[in-house]
Amino acid sequence: MTDTRYDVVGIGNAIVDIIGRCDDAFLAAHGAPKGHMRLVDADTVTRLYDSMGPATEISGGSAANTLVGVASFGGSAAFIGKVADDEFGRIFAHDIRAASVDFHGTKKNGGVPTARSLILVTPDGERTMNTFLGISTELDQGEIDAGVIASSAIVYLEGYLFDRPEAKAAFRLAAEIARKAGRKVALTLSDGFCVDRHRAEFLDLIRNGVDILFANESEIKSLYETDDFENAATHVERDARLVALTRSAKGSVILSGGQRVEVAAVPIEKLEDTTGAGDLYAAGFLYGIAHGHDLETSGRLGSIAAAEVISHVGARPLQSLQLLARKNGLKI
Amino acid sequence: MTDTRYDVVGIGNAIVDIIGRCDDAFLAAHGAPKGHMRLVDADTVTRLYDSMGPATEISGGSAANTLVGVASFGGSAAFIGKVADDEFGRIFAHDIRAASVDFHGTKKNGGVPTARSLILVTPDGERTMNTFLGISTELDQGEIDAGVIASSAIVYLEGYLFDRPEAKAAFRLAAEIARKAGRKVALTLSDGFCVDRHRAEFLDLIRNGVDILFANESEIKSLYETDDFENAATHVERDARLVALTRSAKGSVILSGGQRVEVAAVPIEKLEDTTGAGDLYAAGFLYGIAHGHDLETSGRLGSIAAAEVISHVGARPLQSLQLLARKNGLKI
Repeated sequence: MTDTRYDVVGIGNAIVDIIGRCDDAFLAAHGAPKGHMRLVDADTVTRLYDSMGPATEISGGSAANTLVGVASFGGSAAFIGKVADDEFGRIFAHDIRAASVDFHGTKKNGGVPTARSLILVTPDGERTMNTFLGISTELDQGEIDAGVIASSAIVYLEGYLFDRPEAKAAFRLAAEIARKAGRKVALTLSDGFCVDRHRAEFLDLIRNGVDILFANESEIKSLYETDDFENAATHVERDARLVALTRSAKGSVILSGGQRVEVAAVPIEKLEDTTGAGDLYAAGFLYGIAHGHDLETSGRLGSIAAAEVISHVGARPLQSLQLLARKNGLKI
Repeated sequence: MTDTRYDVVGIGNAIVDIIGRCDDAFLAAHGAPKGHMRLVDADTVTRLYDSMGPATEISGGSAANTLVGVASFGGSAAFIGKVADDEFGRIFAHDIRAASVDFHGTKKNGGVPTARSLILVTPDGERTMNTFLGISTELDQGEIDAGVIASSAIVYLEGYLFDRPEAKAAFRLAAEIARKAGRKVALTLSDGFCVDRHRAEFLDLIRNGVDILFANESEIKSLYETDDFENAATHVERDARLVALTRSAKGSVILSGGQRVEVAAVPIEKLEDTTGAGDLYAAGFLYGIAHGHDLETSGRLGSIAAAEVISHVGARPLQSLQLLARKNGLKI
């Protein structure tokens, strides 16, 4: 095994979030499935943007948010993704680098813009995402830096990558490099609808190629086509080596080799915007595992990071997660 | 007098804010005068952006923020400004229209980008602005729609316009059209340094062409070159027809024809970011005056709007100011 250069390297869609508020009727009128992510084309993103209220632009992208969280805990982190040579590409690259994450992204100019996600937050704090992938769809095996992958303790992959064949191939290549280098492979299922689209392949990966799995309640139920969380948990316990199941206010359940650890959610004053909750839970958990902490501590780090990010608009932490964890009595 | 189409039309720089956090040492290292606005060139804005931390992009611009506030109170509002045909221009145009402000702006493509302001917020909540005007410097008399000006009860002008001769000419033309149409002219002094640059002209305007003047403590002291607020207040009371002086946590002092009205600041839970405080005070005050409210009520509307905007990041309200005013017992 080569020296470990990064705790975690992530591969995902490089996205700038355009976050606005709306009511449930607006979602229904635009056919946006509440609480989910849907892919939209250029025309739809333009139409929806024209209809939505004033917005805030903040860098996002699921795996990218997680890597920013890892860095905020004091971990070493890298991100691989693709942006265009445009304003949103410059914003994305600036923000991730400014958060101390090495950006191994490629920049390309050819008229296809940087990915953006119109995120509509309803009064209950729930977010509904409408993502136009733009240049992100061109993420392929050519982007995968074998040296970076092989020198990272964990390679973290977002399930969203499966929505494009080229990105899926990049995903599989990265997982293979990591496996050969004796590194861990982590996967997030990303979204219930995403699981619907790729159930068989996800199951195969979880059984044969993934060391650490993240899923929320909707995703794990979708994976095993059940309405019962405990039923899904029983199934995934058999299939996965290590899985962290997030359950919003109910905290998380960590399952591994017969062990079951339940971690409470960290109470918050006010739920502002759930965007990034799962991404930041993964950040804390991955930081913990990479630094040799036990499952409970890793889960608690996840809960602390998730609580921070849902207390404000935007999917990346606004304060040092390392300091926040220490304030919460965790020795990291 | 023609029919009144708008309560307020504003003319100003159309700017997207890039808001990040920093400490006082960062400001000092980059020569950014704390609490002020300075104009920077393209190279400086790039260098500063590369050095600053992760940021959030939100539409801004002093007069534009004010007009959004007027609309949020339920007033009719229009804004005249200039953006480029680029991402930031699209963001600006979208956000102001989505806030129910008619955007009489022109869009131009010629390589000069839409204006942006790097706003650095220190832990005390104070904001320091570094503005690259971009295409905004091309705002000139050609942008002034005489019909819009003549049909607005109040034309609101930002002092920042004086930093460019063409914009100043546009400013003077708009004031002249308003005066001839029997409309009111309102002016904000914008910034203490800005006052330093244009003291004589501002004084002449205040004595001869302005009906409603806005200034904060730093600006009014700078105008009369005194360190004493009451001394400055005595001077401006003689020079101005109606002036609202904002004093942060100390509230505001309104002076007109021998009358002095003191309005308390509205208490807030936590000061997050002072960006937009003065702009939103002006929004409430102008809405009040345009709708025939007395000076005290108008001042209270200003205080309510300012309190809302400093409780979160960004210079535009996140909730309906009309509802907020009603919750505070004001009948609007």
